[in-house]
Amino acid sequence: MAQSERESYSDFRHFIISSPSEYVAHVEINRPSKLNAFTPDMWVEIGRIFAKLSRDPGVRAIILSAVGDRAFTAGLDVQAVDQQGLLGNRDQQSDAARQATKLRRQISEFQDCINQIEKCEKPVICVMNGVSIGLAIDIACCADVRICSRDTRFSVKEVDIGMAADIGTLARLPKIVSSFSWVKDVCLTARGFGAEEALAVGFVSQVLETKAKAIEAASMLASFIASKSPVAVQGTKELLNHARDNTVADSEYTKHTLKG
Amino acid sequence: MAQSERESYSDFRHFIISSPSEYVAHVEINRPSKLNAFTPDMWVEIGRIFAKLSRDPGVRAIILSAVGDRAFTAGLDVQAVDQQGLLGNRDQQSDAARQATKLRRQISEFQDCINQIEKCEKPVICVMNGVSIGLAIDIACCADVRICSRDTRFSVKEVDIGMAADIGTLARLPKIVSSFSWVKDVCLTARGFGAEEALAVGFVSQVLETKAKAIEAASMLASFIASKSPVAVQGTKELLNHARDNTVADSEYTKHTLKG
Amino acid sequence: MAQSERESYSDFRHFIISSPSEYVAHVEINRPSKLNAFTPDMWVEIGRIFAKLSRDPGVRAIILSAVGDRAFTAGLDVQAVDQQGLLGNRDQQSDAARQATKLRRQISEFQDCINQIEKCEKPVICVMNGVSIGLAIDIACCADVRICSRDTRFSVKEVDIGMAADIGTLARLPKIVSSFSWVKDVCLTARGFGAEEALAVGFVSQVLETKAKAIEAASMLASFIASKSPVAVQGTKELLNHARDNTVADSEYTKHTLKG
Amino acid sequence: MAQSERESYSDFRHFIISSPSEYVAHVEINRPSKLNAFTPDMWVEIGRIFAKLSRDPGVRAIILSAVGDRAFTAGLDVQAVDQQGLLGNRDQQSDAARQATKLRRQISEFQDCINQIEKCEKPVICVMNGVSIGLAIDIACCADVRICSRDTRFSVKEVDIGMAADIGTLARLPKIVSSFSWVKDVCLTARGFGAEEALAVGFVSQVLETKAKAIEAASMLASFIASKSPVAVQGTKELLNHARDNTVADSEYTKHTLKG
Amino acid sequence: MAQSERESYSDFRHFIISSPSEYVAHVEINRPSKLNAFTPDMWVEIGRIFAKLSRDPGVRAIILSAVGDRAFTAGLDVQAVDQQGLLGNRDQQSDAARQATKLRRQISEFQDCINQIEKCEKPVICVMNGVSIGLAIDIACCADVRICSRDTRFSVKEVDIGMAADIGTLARLPKIVSSFSWVKDVCLTARGFGAEEALAVGFVSQVLETKAKAIEAASMLASFIASKSPVAVQGTKELLNHARDNTVADSEYTKHTLKG
Amino acid sequence: MAQSERESYSDFRHFIISSPSEYVAHVEINRPSKLNAFTPDMWVEIGRIFAKLSRDPGVRAIILSAVGDRAFTAGLDVQAVDQQGLLGNRDQQSDAARQATKLRRQISEFQDCINQIEKCEKPVICVMNGVSIGLAIDIACCADVRICSRDTRFSVKEVDIGMAADIGTLARLPKIVSSFSWVKDVCLTARGFGAEEALAVGFVSQVLETKAKAIEAASMLASFIASKSPVAVQGTKELLNHARDNTVADSEYTKHTLKG
Repeated sequence: MAQSERESYSDFRHFIISSPSEYVAHVEINRPSKLNAFTPDMWVEIGRIFAKLSRDPGVRAIILSAVGDRAFTAGLDVQAVDQQGLLGNRDQQSDAARQATKLRRQISEFQDCINQIEKCEKPVICVMNGVSIGLAIDIACCADVRICSRDTRFSVKEVDIGMAADIGTLARLPKIVSSFSWVKDVCLTARGFGAEEALAVGFVSQVLETKAKAIEAASMLASFIASKSPVAVQGTKELLNHARDNTVADSEYTKHTLKG
Repeated sequence: MAQSERESYSDFRHFIISSPSEYVAHVEINRPSKLNAFTPDMWVEIGRIFAKLSRDPGVRAIILSAVGDRAFTAGLDVQAVDQQGLLGNRDQQSDAARQATKLRRQISEFQDCINQIEKCEKPVICVMNGVSIGLAIDIACCADVRICSRDTRFSVKEVDIGMAADIGTLARLPKIVSSFSWVKDVCLTARGFGAEEALAVGFVSQVLETKAKAIEAASMLASFIASKSPVAVQGTKELLNHARDNTVADSEYTKHTLKG
Repeated sequence: MAQSERESYSDFRHFIISSPSEYVAHVEINRPSKLNAFTPDMWVEIGRIFAKLSRDPGVRAIILSAVGDRAFTAGLDVQAVDQQGLLGNRDQQSDAARQATKLRRQISEFQDCINQIEKCEKPVICVMNGVSIGLAIDIACCADVRICSRDTRFSVKEVDIGMAADIGTLARLPKIVSSFSWVKDVCLTARGFGAEEALAVGFVSQVLETKAKAIEAASMLASFIASKSPVAVQGTKELLNHARDNTVADSEYTKHTLKG
Repeated sequence: MAQSERESYSDFRHFIISSPSEYVAHVEINRPSKLNAFTPDMWVEIGRIFAKLSRDPGVRAIILSAVGDRAFTAGLDVQAVDQQGLLGNRDQQSDAARQATKLRRQISEFQDCINQIEKCEKPVICVMNGVSIGLAIDIACCADVRICSRDTRFSVKEVDIGMAADIGTLARLPKIVSSFSWVKDVCLTARGFGAEEALAVGFVSQVLETKAKAIEAASMLASFIASKSPVAVQGTKELLNHARDNTVADSEYTKHTLKG
Repeated sequence: MAQSERESYSDFRHFIISSPSEYVAHVEINRPSKLNAFTPDMWVEIGRIFAKLSRDPGVRAIILSAVGDRAFTAGLDVQAVDQQGLLGNRDQQSDAARQATKLRRQISEFQDCINQIEKCEKPVICVMNGVSIGLAIDIACCADVRICSRDTRFSVKEVDIGMAADIGTLARLPKIVSSFSWVKDVCLTARGFGAEEALAVGFVSQVLETKAKAIEAASMLASFIASKSPVAVQGTKELLNHARDNTVADSEYTKHTLKG
Repeated sequence: MAQSERESYSDFRHFIISSPSEYVAHVEINRPSKLNAFTPDMWVEIGRIFAKLSRDPGVRAIILSAVGDRAFTAGLDVQAVDQQGLLGNRDQQSDAARQATKLRRQISEFQDCINQIEKCEKPVICVMNGVSIGLAIDIACCADVRICSRDTRFSVKEVDIGMAADIGTLARLPKIVSSFSWVKDVCLTARGFGAEEALAVGFVSQVLETKAKAIEAASMLASFIASKSPVAVQGTKELLNHARDNTVADSEYTKHTLKG
């Protein structure tokens, strides 16, 4: 941990990290030639980036988007995952029980990386466009506010890709949108859905005409949040996430202790 | 249990069970002359049917609807319930404490029957039309996807029928639709509401012009789900139901163990 | 407690309590000259009022609104809070740990007062109009049904006012409206929003043209609820609140025991 | 609440409250002629006493014992309870549902009074002697440390007195002693047990030869605790009670927030 | 269910069911030639027996022991389990995912059978002697009171037999005995332990010289419990089991509703 | 993480790591000149060591003890903590809210390090001797089996050292020993207690005459555990820890999924 502090934002190879305005960081997934598909290196990096932003006193709000007009991300880069023998791509020598143990460890580590976005103390505004499927939904579910452009094409890919790939969508989606019937529909079919449908069910809270306009809306929102008391903003993020998972009584108990 | 396996689908007296396409089962409530109102025999049967479908390797998706154009179901057949001395219809001899114990057992067994729809390992698509009140809502809340025709007339009847009749609606409705203010409104008043209102709050995820079209939409959805990997589909149903009731951390823990 | 029973409804100084129809009580916040802003006396009074209504056999449904056309409430009266040295307004003599202990006690007592609205055994219909910010949201979240007039202007003020002021909104909002992205947006920015937006996300379940019409709609709803079996209505309120915070299995267990 | 502060410790009629040493309060149940049996007035008083001690900056540790050598308490004074028509003693006019509602309110208020002992921010050392049955166990379970003299005779009276009388023992005993087999044994039979058995299973942590020696031991313990940092002592009590009821992860989360 | 009611106690093939005194049932595992090892038929039978006893108004307390002086039970009859292709004994044709699904169903059904002992509304006193290993501990953990003779030899066999065999011990043991260090010791090593050690940690609450004396002690205890109000006794069992798994606040809430 | 894999066991500066027998690792705290008091470097190291052992396929059981005859550990090295400005040692420049945020992060990171002992997939046997106070108890509570020599002197130091130092004892102790009265006694007073008392309440499960004999007993236990199926042993550790914190129903659900 001490070590990652010494890492500079420019050391990350698959993400561009900039500061468009005071106290605002902008993280861009940068592999547009592959529709921003994620390799194992990338999920480790994104975890480290958000852990670092979480502790950075110069950052109070974060925008997460992707380079290019075609995709936020097309999900896992299956070829890269295969080459590294990850996520259930079984090697021949070891027995089933060891394989299962190894797989559980890998998924747990993968989840830990993506969960850094939710654990990040600063609010994260996720801007999606174009192809936004599979891991795109896992990542967006960890963000605080979701915005997209009109051309965004979403899909929850768990039933297609196979189960080992689920990294948070199934755990979070029933808690962050309105209709459980709709959640079951899109998760059991892996069918695509567009920006308007995402807005109607509350998955995103704004749809803009173009990606550029969506980035602009996110920037204004981020700057506005960054102008507030950072202690109040970060406490609010933490309490709302706590409330999602706990009873009202537990949240009220924790709340007044958090603020002591 | 071994025994119910020996039961044939054609043995059930109050339900028609067919297979409209490969791996799809269609269960129809078949008492149209009484608006498909449920007798005690019927709730025992529906529990056994869904337990059997859950274990049937030839079934991967299920449609649940009712015979006739007038009603999905008008709820409990109060006359039949009375005749059998069930659900709080007190006999004269026994004291209050014993009555209460007996009532609790009956309600628990009634809930167990209806809960088989939710526990069924295969996705259940519920198609409602016409009169869909009382027990209709309890049943629909246990299904995974809810679809209805434009003429459907819903009502949560708990406050009218009296409390002993609640079999799951009050426990599930706050978790499967969007607005708690709306949930309180329809549950505290027992007022009717229609298809459009049900769609707006997310209780159903599709409204079709006619019952026939709704069945058609459900059939396409069921066939599409049945074409996916059954292990992935069934795991997804289980995880989403688990997520509805648990913290994100618990769901992620369970999730990667489920998939080991 | 025995004592508050001896208190008459006309003893309360900051609220008007009337009975517009049989079994219906109407509570009006009565400090229109200050936009109905709350002093510490007022939050103690509102707690006592709802505790009393909860036990009053002559009351079966409650309307909560405010006097005047300008505001439901503008939230805490900061000046009054300051004068009494409450909620984090530190006195000079005592050390940090004692200050923190004192603050936690005050917030806990403040929460207890507002929570009486949720704990009240009778349904509460909250009618908002005009300025409805800060504590207005905390109070509305404790009510069962939320209705507003078209001119209502809402804002979740936690990040602006500072954290010690949160009295329930952050704990409840994620559980009573549809879109977590929207919840984060309005809570992290403290931005205003209007009646239509509140309806779209399910925060209110009806928007009426004027405050008078909203009161009229609430009165009809209250009278309708008051015409039902009070045992069934109160049991339904309790079970729905329990369901919001608990698993389906726990709610079903409790439910059939509640009805024994 | 402001009001109870104005109440003096000498205003309580059924309890003697003294201060044997600096920062230590001693509360004695004072109805020895009736084996310290509790009337409804007494349980309201004990609730107010511990609420007052909780807020009294001059108190850091509390001893709870009873006047006389024959009993800590023989439990409820059934005659007094009957006369006031409390706890299930049905009046003739009202119907069963109303009776049940009334009974639930009464038990809830009775529990709230006794729970003030557990909620009290300062540690409570309970010293038992002689007859210590029924409500004695409910009260002792709410205390932090339990000490008794060799002549103490315990009994969990729920199955004998009838269920409405349970005020916390069944909820707490499985969490505060070692052997669930023993808990079931004493709770299902209402059989008596003595000081040595109470020590062996961990219900008490010290047995002294006489009541006087037990009071002396409690006094030394209370003075020792009162010599520690009150913030640390009160935080420790709160965290241990929280830990009893929550997962380790939740307790660790709450713990470091509590101390912020 | 209706059906099992028609089953007579004498229909069960592997258990002797008698009534040694009024309102007391005695269930004896009856396969002494095989050290009372359990076949799949036997675990289905024991589930049906306790479901039947739970509903039998003539039964208020139950003794569970085994025929013969050598063993309570030596656990699963591995040979019988193998022959039926149960619990992970893989058939060749089906793929890994289907095998896993089948195994999960079997374990779940096996757990459901054994859990009937805990779910049984009447208290169950388990008397162990001689070899009491593996499934013996699972069964005993579901009982309410555990008694044994001095010659009893216990062992938690999970780590030896393999994991698929665990049917409740690991879930319950940490909650019903005193020392987590001891629980880990006996569960991680599968080492044997005797009656005195079982008493010291609270796993049993009585050790008698001989099996005959242990049965005698259990009979007295059962008769004594059977002489109490059955509603109070059954409510107490239910509340204590609920308390083991829930917070004090939830148990108190449920408690007073249970008694309404 | 990939990185820590490259770390060799001999790279750790404050701990000796050896392998006394096949599949057994022995970790020794190595700062005997300072009674093995912990510096911040040491708690980071112990976290990394147990994370590494958790993944090391050559390790199946772990012994944790300390070098020297005087102490397991005397807790935090307060001087070292002060010099690094950690755990509440406030620097002058920053305001109270930032200080609180910083402190919470530090405690959370400190907890994460010590929690690696509990999260380690392999069983950990903790052998204590001599001075074993403060952090010694936090560490021992994370181990699976606790053994000590007769000369061990324990103390829970939270109320003396101040609250920021609690790193797990208060969250775990109520769940791993028998008597809540005893837990409150030792935690509220910080009084010392010896080996026999620790054994009587179940904190340790064995007391040996000397440290050498305790290490010998731990070695035999570790070798015995290491001879079992590692998958079964590690699954058992995980399930028992899960059971400590969850309901029986959740543990059974997870259990059979874990084993799929």
